[in-house]
Amino acid sequence: MNEDFKIPVVGKPAIKSPLLLSKVEGDGVFDYIESSDRVLYDPTLDNFYKSKNENTEPLSFEKAGPKEFIYFDPPKTKVAIVTCGGLCPGLNNVIRSIVLQLYYRYKVTRVIGIKYGYEGFIPEYNHPIIDLTPEVVERIHLFGGTLLGSSRGKQDVCQIVDSLERMNVNILFTIGGDGTLRGALAIKEEIEKRNLKIAVAGIPKTIDNDIGYISKSFGFETAYSIAEAIVHVAHNEAIGAYNGITIVKLMGRHSGFIAANAALSTQDTNFVLIPEMDFDLEGENGFLEALKKRILQRHHALIVVAEGAGQHIFEGEPKKYDESGNLLNKDIGLHLKSVIDEFFKSLDIRVSIKYIDPSYIIRSARAIADDSKFCLQLSQNAVHAAMAGKTGFVVGYWNGQFTLLPISLAVRERQKINLESELWWNVLEVTGQPVSMKN
Amino acid sequence: MNEDFKIPVVGKPAIKSPLLLSKVEGDGVFDYIESSDRVLYDPTLDNFYKSKNENTEPLSFEKAGPKEFIYFDPPKTKVAIVTCGGLCPGLNNVIRSIVLQLYYRYKVTRVIGIKYGYEGFIPEYNHPIIDLTPEVVERIHLFGGTLLGSSRGKQDVCQIVDSLERMNVNILFTIGGDGTLRGALAIKEEIEKRNLKIAVAGIPKTIDNDIGYISKSFGFETAYSIAEAIVHVAHNEAIGAYNGITIVKLMGRHSGFIAANAALSTQDTNFVLIPEMDFDLEGENGFLEALKKRILQRHHALIVVAEGAGQHIFEGEPKKYDESGNLLNKDIGLHLKSVIDEFFKSLDIRVSIKYIDPSYIIRSARAIADDSKFCLQLSQNAVHAAMAGKTGFVVGYWNGQFTLLPISLAVRERQKINLESELWWNVLEVTGQPVSMKN
Amino acid sequence: MNEDFKIPVVGKPAIKSPLLLSKVEGDGVFDYIESSDRVLYDPTLDNFYKSKNENTEPLSFEKAGPKEFIYFDPPKTKVAIVTCGGLCPGLNNVIRSIVLQLYYRYKVTRVIGIKYGYEGFIPEYNHPIIDLTPEVVERIHLFGGTLLGSSRGKQDVCQIVDSLERMNVNILFTIGGDGTLRGALAIKEEIEKRNLKIAVAGIPKTIDNDIGYISKSFGFETAYSIAEAIVHVAHNEAIGAYNGITIVKLMGRHSGFIAANAALSTQDTNFVLIPEMDFDLEGENGFLEALKKRILQRHHALIVVAEGAGQHIFEGEPKKYDESGNLLNKDIGLHLKSVIDEFFKSLDIRVSIKYIDPSYIIRSARAIADDSKFCLQLSQNAVHAAMAGKTGFVVGYWNGQFTLLPISLAVRERQKINLESELWWNVLEVTGQPVSMKN
Amino acid sequence: MNEDFKIPVVGKPAIKSPLLLSKVEGDGVFDYIESSDRVLYDPTLDNFYKSKNENTEPLSFEKAGPKEFIYFDPPKTKVAIVTCGGLCPGLNNVIRSIVLQLYYRYKVTRVIGIKYGYEGFIPEYNHPIIDLTPEVVERIHLFGGTLLGSSRGKQDVCQIVDSLERMNVNILFTIGGDGTLRGALAIKEEIEKRNLKIAVAGIPKTIDNDIGYISKSFGFETAYSIAEAIVHVAHNEAIGAYNGITIVKLMGRHSGFIAANAALSTQDTNFVLIPEMDFDLEGENGFLEALKKRILQRHHALIVVAEGAGQHIFEGEPKKYDESGNLLNKDIGLHLKSVIDEFFKSLDIRVSIKYIDPSYIIRSARAIADDSKFCLQLSQNAVHAAMAGKTGFVVGYWNGQFTLLPISLAVRERQKINLESELWWNVLEVTGQPVSMKN
Repeated sequence: MNEDFKIPVVGKPAIKSPLLLSKVEGDGVFDYIESSDRVLYDPTLDNFYKSKNENTEPLSFEKAGPKEFIYFDPPKTKVAIVTCGGLCPGLNNVIRSIVLQLYYRYKVTRVIGIKYGYEGFIPEYNHPIIDLTPEVVERIHLFGGTLLGSSRGKQDVCQIVDSLERMNVNILFTIGGDGTLRGALAIKEEIEKRNLKIAVAGIPKTIDNDIGYISKSFGFETAYSIAEAIVHVAHNEAIGAYNGITIVKLMGRHSGFIAANAALSTQDTNFVLIPEMDFDLEGENGFLEALKKRILQRHHALIVVAEGAGQHIFEGEPKKYDESGNLLNKDIGLHLKSVIDEFFKSLDIRVSIKYIDPSYIIRSARAIADDSKFCLQLSQNAVHAAMAGKTGFVVGYWNGQFTLLPISLAVRERQKINLESELWWNVLEVTGQPVSMKN
Repeated sequence: MNEDFKIPVVGKPAIKSPLLLSKVEGDGVFDYIESSDRVLYDPTLDNFYKSKNENTEPLSFEKAGPKEFIYFDPPKTKVAIVTCGGLCPGLNNVIRSIVLQLYYRYKVTRVIGIKYGYEGFIPEYNHPIIDLTPEVVERIHLFGGTLLGSSRGKQDVCQIVDSLERMNVNILFTIGGDGTLRGALAIKEEIEKRNLKIAVAGIPKTIDNDIGYISKSFGFETAYSIAEAIVHVAHNEAIGAYNGITIVKLMGRHSGFIAANAALSTQDTNFVLIPEMDFDLEGENGFLEALKKRILQRHHALIVVAEGAGQHIFEGEPKKYDESGNLLNKDIGLHLKSVIDEFFKSLDIRVSIKYIDPSYIIRSARAIADDSKFCLQLSQNAVHAAMAGKTGFVVGYWNGQFTLLPISLAVRERQKINLESELWWNVLEVTGQPVSMKN
Repeated sequence: MNEDFKIPVVGKPAIKSPLLLSKVEGDGVFDYIESSDRVLYDPTLDNFYKSKNENTEPLSFEKAGPKEFIYFDPPKTKVAIVTCGGLCPGLNNVIRSIVLQLYYRYKVTRVIGIKYGYEGFIPEYNHPIIDLTPEVVERIHLFGGTLLGSSRGKQDVCQIVDSLERMNVNILFTIGGDGTLRGALAIKEEIEKRNLKIAVAGIPKTIDNDIGYISKSFGFETAYSIAEAIVHVAHNEAIGAYNGITIVKLMGRHSGFIAANAALSTQDTNFVLIPEMDFDLEGENGFLEALKKRILQRHHALIVVAEGAGQHIFEGEPKKYDESGNLLNKDIGLHLKSVIDEFFKSLDIRVSIKYIDPSYIIRSARAIADDSKFCLQLSQNAVHAAMAGKTGFVVGYWNGQFTLLPISLAVRERQKINLESELWWNVLEVTGQPVSMKN
Repeated sequence: MNEDFKIPVVGKPAIKSPLLLSKVEGDGVFDYIESSDRVLYDPTLDNFYKSKNENTEPLSFEKAGPKEFIYFDPPKTKVAIVTCGGLCPGLNNVIRSIVLQLYYRYKVTRVIGIKYGYEGFIPEYNHPIIDLTPEVVERIHLFGGTLLGSSRGKQDVCQIVDSLERMNVNILFTIGGDGTLRGALAIKEEIEKRNLKIAVAGIPKTIDNDIGYISKSFGFETAYSIAEAIVHVAHNEAIGAYNGITIVKLMGRHSGFIAANAALSTQDTNFVLIPEMDFDLEGENGFLEALKKRILQRHHALIVVAEGAGQHIFEGEPKKYDESGNLLNKDIGLHLKSVIDEFFKSLDIRVSIKYIDPSYIIRSARAIADDSKFCLQLSQNAVHAAMAGKTGFVVGYWNGQFTLLPISLAVRERQKINLESELWWNVLEVTGQPVSMKN
């Protein structure tokens, strides 16, 4: 097996699981997952033959699920949960599901919530902790955001581990994105250096769906579902005026998945601009000429642009970063609005441009049904793995199955839309936009 | 009766209504509305005694409703509908309900739609007209915006009346705001000058609910209902960060009704800033001090600001107008964001500010159930009045009853929130904000 | 003033209100409501002249609102809240708004919740009480139902008052319908008999909107808004089959307001049957013939029936009552389905009938924005009145103003749809159904 | 390759596709799908080694997608679309997407809609056909149901093929469930017998998600998403009364996927009963004892039951079938309500039972965003395959990829929940219900 796909452990699991599952196929009871249960990375027949002929083992992920033996002894186990980074639909579902799974299935009753991200570990911030009982989390899935609060930015890893030690925490669940997971990895390494028996589990959070080796992250479907509703009404604005043009800026710093999926859901979008795509504004084959053609033919146009699209346009301008060190995108939406305005003015074509930026409306929304289910299953599997003593891992999803992968793999490279993929082709088919808008 | 409240007529109604209503109370069938049926402007006991003692007739509106005699002969009647100005939830409901009411109740089958507002009358724009049959309008209430398109700006009144004459239109329904209604009044006057028998009926459209003598306009409830949902999630952003501050800018150029009602619906807002209200940003009693107090006590704050609030802050800066001649507001939302940011930086208090401007998401939405019903009843009453030969009127709503009022009265002064009213007091109670933020 | 409209009091209010309102018009601060501020029952010009000419005072309601002097001393005041009867959207909003209004505006911090309706007062049921703090009620408006639980049925009034005495309750807020309010009246009378200083305030709860002298009750708009959405999809079922017929049974034991408003909101309904309406199923002018005509012409039909409609059809069959003593309706929906089925079978006309009964889906829903606002304002006004020492009253709504009326008046007669009213005429216009379906 | 997985063809595709895709990897343009592109049935590492060691080819599906060569010449091609069986969210999306894909991508402009299912082909029914242009389908995705109408029941295959011949149809898209697909297979066989060049393509429609070899069908996610919302409010009813019990009956004749997914989405359900599961009502280990235990501990319970669950209880009673020959389930929901009522009465435990059956509200709903996207992609792939001359196939979905499979395979056996699967285990974990309720 490829070492990069291997999950670290805190210690050897030696306690019989309280779950009372089976090891016998056909007895009507779900079987414990064996460590050898693995899900193929590439499930095509081509890859089967390639691996077979080359006599190599194809890449695969460890399957998530309940294990026959666990490492942590439930009555003696204390668990902490922390949420970091920007809001994402489903955060409260994940918190709630971890608490209920620990409480009702493993009888772990001591769960605490760390306030305002990694800050909550650092004494100088003076944030209180919250006891997370079933009563406290009972209805938190009914609102968006996070009960625990969140924050961006790095904190001192030694102080975090000091705090975990001081509070006698055995398992830490970190719910966050790329930066948070890198932090979790550093925490795990510091724990190892100190020879502590604390498991660090990650629930990957990326509303942009851009974490590598994970086909779907929680909150992402909610995000493009709300985006769909907004693109729908944006279309009303476009057709409500003669030569109406509506620009909807959606999330997607490095990857255009929300924009692409919103376009596929609504089927009214005429142009989708994403970070993965190189394009020119000016010139014969550029975006503005394509837009002009559309306007002259149909007298309205709907443009969906991911916030990270067209950053090459701003090259040379000074860069900005947020508190977590993420590169801040220049505002492509407002820029587009302004260049489109000037372009049509220069042509003496009257247009009516509307601009919509629904970012925080989407980020702070409550999870839809499918995400609610997904958060539950992520949480169930995160608890199974952490109780079994796994550490430095995140719960993933691949080929319709829940998987485990090392944090180091998850943060290695971002997931992006391949412009040669079926997904992007479907977008081109549904928008009718040119395959390339590059001169 | 006060002359200002009197509805003009095209001619004497002489044709028996096809509606087959009753004139007898108690027979179980609705009675035709008499011209003497009127609704009091001020329905208090105090006003009763005042009018009685002064021996004056209290102010009252003509009650809308079906009349025993109509002016226009249905098989010979041709009707035009035009929608003007910005989008507002319910436009398609109104179009649909006028068409269906004319078709099924009065058997008027020739209804045309004018494209893109008053532009649609002007030959040089070359916009086509649309035949509005029951089939065409069958499902248009399922989407926001307007089937007919809209535009802002004045058009030449003579050309509009030329066009009405050329198309043999007998009744024109104009759906629009203040500017549109002034236009409708001018059209009505030009028609009179030419001695034509064309009725001009107005359906007042103001998402801000700011037309005088009308307690509720269509689309307004949808607007603050969507605003409620957005303020809800904005609250999640506020509590999701330490010292989180969310600013939601809502519509309301001259009147803060949407902002006030959104605050009353959510009960999570801490500050509501509206155009009717004078306030200081700086100073001991100013907004920023009040906000600081809130942040230090509760560590989060939610601010709802109407787009027309605080325009006094920008005094001295050059003014801008849109195509319809409406004064464009300076962006108080972005200004607030920036001054709040600087204020807390100067105090060395870390805050996390989020800004949400959902304007077009609200304007282009589909009407909610109550607005859908309201649009129907407005349309039924507009058709009754226009068929009876009334002209230069709008359909209003007062004390829970549909009324008719002259356009000249409706455009006389804007409806605003009285800071001494119960509505505003309820807002102060629910937000807990200071009664005055003026030094 | 008509004695029937007069509000009883516990004692003379002698404590200055902590609200710091004004008594001066024009100072920009809301004025305390005087007892002489009253809202006319009939706000028409006709009624003005009638009263004037007869030299009588027209009927009027006391206006609700904050009073300059209150009876109960906030730091010494203890309040109980109880919810009774079936679920209705907005119950949690009312509970929450009463608690927050008492806490933040009047500084009354001791509020308790009685579990499961009047049962919660009776020792033998052994239900616990709940302390209602701002933290406890913080998010309860996010879910439907009632935090406190509810029950139907009468309980012993003496035991209830014993319990109020034992718990040192000064104000009791009862949220419930007709039966609950009659109970509240009995409690108030027992309190008087014992010479106690306990105020009893009612928040009228009727999803059917059928309480007399109150134009709109909380939850009602949510009810017909959800009904609208269901009637919409029911229409899809009707047109989805050849000769498709969909029957939607909506709430309305004695009054057809939900059915009528759902029809007005959707404009797709062909028949609305309500309790106020006498009709025949069979016969030349009966419902079935009208339905046949519709089906042969248009090949689909959508029927909305209130649960209390057509009860005359079941005359002679034995009656049933629920635990609160309400007469249980025979199931007109299922009956219609079966007679329609037989009728078309007998004519050898193939039809496809679908039946939808969404009752509990509607009752247990969360309040929409407008109801949320309405619940807040009802609660604010209920608190103002109770703190001022009023008792035996309910908060009402009339001509767009919040009013106070004696419970005895509110329970005198049910509000029903007048078949000769504009509302019903609007329904007839939009459905196109025959004015009468009586032979 | 397993012959059962092989897709039949009408003839050899010889016309170059107008889509202008690529055959070169790495050029930034999506590549035509080769017939050798296949998706593994079992994507586990275990299966890799099994196939490798046994030296067999693992089972795999043909990957759907655009082909370099097509069979039908677009300007000469005429297409028919028919929808059959019960309503399912997404029907109008599929119709719309097929029309738009044919029109804009393949320039096939002649598309007709067959009314009311297979009936529409049979002369005696006298149903008209509808021309499906982009204008006609423009907004049909905004409402549920089907623009074309539908019907159940078999029709004469010869007459159907006669009709296809008479109308010169080249491709027939049938959208329907098990029975419809069997009909499509018979049509395809009759076409072959007559040696006609007509392709028959199936879009599998099953709201229950029970078609074999297809992991997800359109409308299914919408179904359990709406079910989630209803189960949420049902929970309010359960906790709103002392010993409140709510029963929600959901769709699922043979498979409990909707019930299971609704439970996973809401996390408030205490019992899920599905057709795949054998259980006893009575007895020590039976459902009623488990329910009693729950009620005595927590005083409320929420039960979700699939319509096909517990049919063994009715064994011995006479069976009923619908017009399509589907076995009609006995009403387990009403039966449960009645036995639960009797059971607790016999124990003298007071309970309050509510029953909710939202079937038609779900079936007739509009597709949610994710289903809307899914319908688009199904339709794009159905068009690609049919234009390439494939016939007797349905478009499937497996491991996150769109596939093609012979109708004969799709109708071979129903997809059911394996009680030993992870899905069912997740349900058991979240409900806490006993693993078995069998004595």
